[in-house]
Amino acid sequence: MTTATLTAYDELKSLLRESATLGSVGSLLNWDQETQMPPKGGAFRGEQASLIARLAHERLTDPRVGELLGACEADPELNADAAIKANLREIRRDYDKATKLPSELVTEMSLTFAHGVEAWRVARAKSDFSAMKPWYEKVVALNRRKAECLGAPKGGELYDALLDEFEPGMTSAEIEVIFKPLRERLTPLIAAIAGSGVKPDLSVHDVPSPLPEQIKFVEFVARSVGYDFEAGRLDISTHPFSETIGIGDSRITSRFTDSHVVEPVATTLHEAGHGMYEQGLPRSAHFGTPLAEACSLGIHESQSRMWENQVGRSRPFWSWLTPHMKRMLGSGFDRFGVDQVYASVNAVKPHFIRVESDEATYNLHIMLRFDIERALIRGDLRVDDLPGVWNERMKSDLGLTVPEDRLGVLQDIHWPMGAIGYFPTYTLGNLYAAQFWVKINEVFPDLDGMMGRGEFSPLLAWLRENIHSQGRRYPAPELCQRITGKGLSHEPLCDYLEAKFRPLYGL
Amino acid sequence: MTTATLTAYDELKSLLRESATLGSVGSLLNWDQETQMPPKGGAFRGEQASLIARLAHERLTDPRVGELLGACEADPELNADAAIKANLREIRRDYDKATKLPSELVTEMSLTFAHGVEAWRVARAKSDFSAMKPWYEKVVALNRRKAECLGAPKGGELYDALLDEFEPGMTSAEIEVIFKPLRERLTPLIAAIAGSGVKPDLSVHDVPSPLPEQIKFVEFVARSVGYDFEAGRLDISTHPFSETIGIGDSRITSRFTDSHVVEPVATTLHEAGHGMYEQGLPRSAHFGTPLAEACSLGIHESQSRMWENQVGRSRPFWSWLTPHMKRMLGSGFDRFGVDQVYASVNAVKPHFIRVESDEATYNLHIMLRFDIERALIRGDLRVDDLPGVWNERMKSDLGLTVPEDRLGVLQDIHWPMGAIGYFPTYTLGNLYAAQFWVKINEVFPDLDGMMGRGEFSPLLAWLRENIHSQGRRYPAPELCQRITGKGLSHEPLCDYLEAKFRPLYGL
Repeated sequence: MTTATLTAYDELKSLLRESATLGSVGSLLNWDQETQMPPKGGAFRGEQASLIARLAHERLTDPRVGELLGACEADPELNADAAIKANLREIRRDYDKATKLPSELVTEMSLTFAHGVEAWRVARAKSDFSAMKPWYEKVVALNRRKAECLGAPKGGELYDALLDEFEPGMTSAEIEVIFKPLRERLTPLIAAIAGSGVKPDLSVHDVPSPLPEQIKFVEFVARSVGYDFEAGRLDISTHPFSETIGIGDSRITSRFTDSHVVEPVATTLHEAGHGMYEQGLPRSAHFGTPLAEACSLGIHESQSRMWENQVGRSRPFWSWLTPHMKRMLGSGFDRFGVDQVYASVNAVKPHFIRVESDEATYNLHIMLRFDIERALIRGDLRVDDLPGVWNERMKSDLGLTVPEDRLGVLQDIHWPMGAIGYFPTYTLGNLYAAQFWVKINEVFPDLDGMMGRGEFSPLLAWLRENIHSQGRRYPAPELCQRITGKGLSHEPLCDYLEAKFRPLYGL
Repeated sequence: MTTATLTAYDELKSLLRESATLGSVGSLLNWDQETQMPPKGGAFRGEQASLIARLAHERLTDPRVGELLGACEADPELNADAAIKANLREIRRDYDKATKLPSELVTEMSLTFAHGVEAWRVARAKSDFSAMKPWYEKVVALNRRKAECLGAPKGGELYDALLDEFEPGMTSAEIEVIFKPLRERLTPLIAAIAGSGVKPDLSVHDVPSPLPEQIKFVEFVARSVGYDFEAGRLDISTHPFSETIGIGDSRITSRFTDSHVVEPVATTLHEAGHGMYEQGLPRSAHFGTPLAEACSLGIHESQSRMWENQVGRSRPFWSWLTPHMKRMLGSGFDRFGVDQVYASVNAVKPHFIRVESDEATYNLHIMLRFDIERALIRGDLRVDDLPGVWNERMKSDLGLTVPEDRLGVLQDIHWPMGAIGYFPTYTLGNLYAAQFWVKINEVFPDLDGMMGRGEFSPLLAWLRENIHSQGRRYPAPELCQRITGKGLSHEPLCDYLEAKFRPLYGL
């Protein structure tokens, strides 16, 4: 490779590093806002965040980035290096996306969605859909304009341009092909569970523990599975999240109540799964470039879901953790055996609220949202008809009659904040997790034994090597193919759920 | 005022606001580093901080700032407004200072001082002065170059240019005029105390309290004196500090041990004093301009010292707080009467370490440093001779024989981090606090009664109106003159210390 283009590649990386550094500062502003900031700091925090976001965006869309990128792409020697070639492919993707959107549209979306979220907080509290109607209409209109600017990949529909922001390389048609048989196998499973005479004893959820001891306990769990507290920390927030503040600093939060330590364990494992993915991305070598970034939201979610569900709701996991729970949280847990805890963390019960749903019903919530938002962007559904369609689907899919929109169409922040195309990545995460889990069981024939002994480091090392360290080198569908030898399918998730729930519910 | 210059003033404020917003983001990076950041985040944090500092500096030194400032200064109508005129005067001061320093010198200082601090941490731990010698020589040389670029105000000596960074409007000759009689009255007072037969019972410092209860207690103290926790928070750090993160967000930290709650009270009051000054600056109206900024380090320190000492080491204060201490921290404190606590928080004992020194001896530590750093910049003292001169002065001023440089010339971070001209502001703070306190006692004849009843809000309101809300409208010496009717003098501090310590030590 010539000196001139090596310099071009270095200069390109240096510009992107500055943009990413500003982005990381924005992450600190957000983390601090959610976990530490005193109330009176709120108004000015928006000004800090929008300045930093603007400066980061200016660098990302600097015409110099386009010039340097063109020079690098034209250099055959640079492209002979497969990692650099992949990096350039993804930098091109980001640059084209960032420069295709007119800045007035970016500003309008940012202001509208910020106000939309404020309006949503009020409307949800009052369960007042009519107050949100004009905002949802703006969100649909702005997202259609955005999709038109970006253009749908692979000549697909407009919605695919939005989806591509969150799950690059996946189209809604491809998702539909997977979701359809998934629903066809989930529905009878859920019906059979509902009809089963087995009702798990949920009283383990009612054993109280003081907050400081709960925090120590979930920190023990997170540390045991491999989350690195030297490169992160765990705080309390209303809505749990993970946030990377910079190289060597990927933080997580969890949510607690005065008692009920079992749910915080699941929440913490979920966020620790995100956090361990972030800690495993090769930032030291590639910070600022796509090689150091997460592959897709679906892959990110596969990591959180795997630790939360495949690991954290498994019987071997609880055979390891239950004695520690008794040791660390006291005698209130003495009367619970492993089977009882295992059954209670896997109770299936259709719920109005997505985030409170179990492994089996959760995906029905997602498919409902996917169908609805796709229809909104297609123009097949008017915002006026949203609550009606939502409630019909809740009835037909989950057998629930939605009593008020607060428990229905108004429950999620995603649409008010302008995110359309985001929801399907949750179920894609479940699908990827299950498909990876099949492979992992082949690699580690004694996986259950390892989990039962609290040995999680071989699993984490495998995830590091095969997923985390890859960054955005391969698009998610290709990563899945490389790891599992197959394209993404509904079967591993269906097999996993049936294998878990049939014995639990005596089916 | 004409539309054109109103626009110039608005544009000027807008540019400065962007620079100050970046500065506030830098403050968050620093606060987080000292209180929250996990260890592995440290290396990258420097990159984040230096990028933000560079961007803030670019805006401050933008030639457009100079153009707009010139246009505003030339407009008679703008200058007819006394507040705007003061603002322009201070903006000019900042702009000239920022643009007088060549950027290569700024970079060299920043790198040298960062490494100097690292070297100092090692050298202090080993008590190895020879390892620091080359760094101190660089610090002196770079500070001389800096002072030459800035130029000494009022035609004074080179050192005054450095002092002017921290205490605008004050020269070393003026300080000397105050420090000389201060030393002449302090020295016999300290000698008399040393010769006194009265030895305070210090056992209240040894009553243990659990950390969480200590934190609740000092938060109660900070809240009681008026620190606003809706616009701030209190965290733990190795070195206590206060940091403003933005409008409505001025945080403080304190330091704790497993027991010894009395010293954390003093530390917390000190930082709450800084924090309340920050909370009282008129940021909502003037953020980004000097009217929203602290007058000087000396005035800042006057606020922390007044709450720590004039309030927090007074007998009325402890007659109010002692019952709360017994109520909140348990029966270990039951046997202590108010007089006993009051005597123990005012024990005088010469100490090697400045930050562990009492109110009486503290200022001798500062005067020693002032004389030495002034001589270094004048060229009257070589770095080689530093430990010798230091140890001679400790012997003659405080009667102490320094056993190793760790407890002597290597104890402070200020010189390693390149700060020369900073030290005198500590004693200036004590002097301002004492002089303001005389005025405050005139304004509130029942001040002792108010403190004894825990009524601190009238005092805070007076400080808000007379000091905090003024920002940089008046230079510190003028502010002192306006408030007290007199120039700064050694007398109020000497009178205050003698009035306190003579009865305590039976003199």
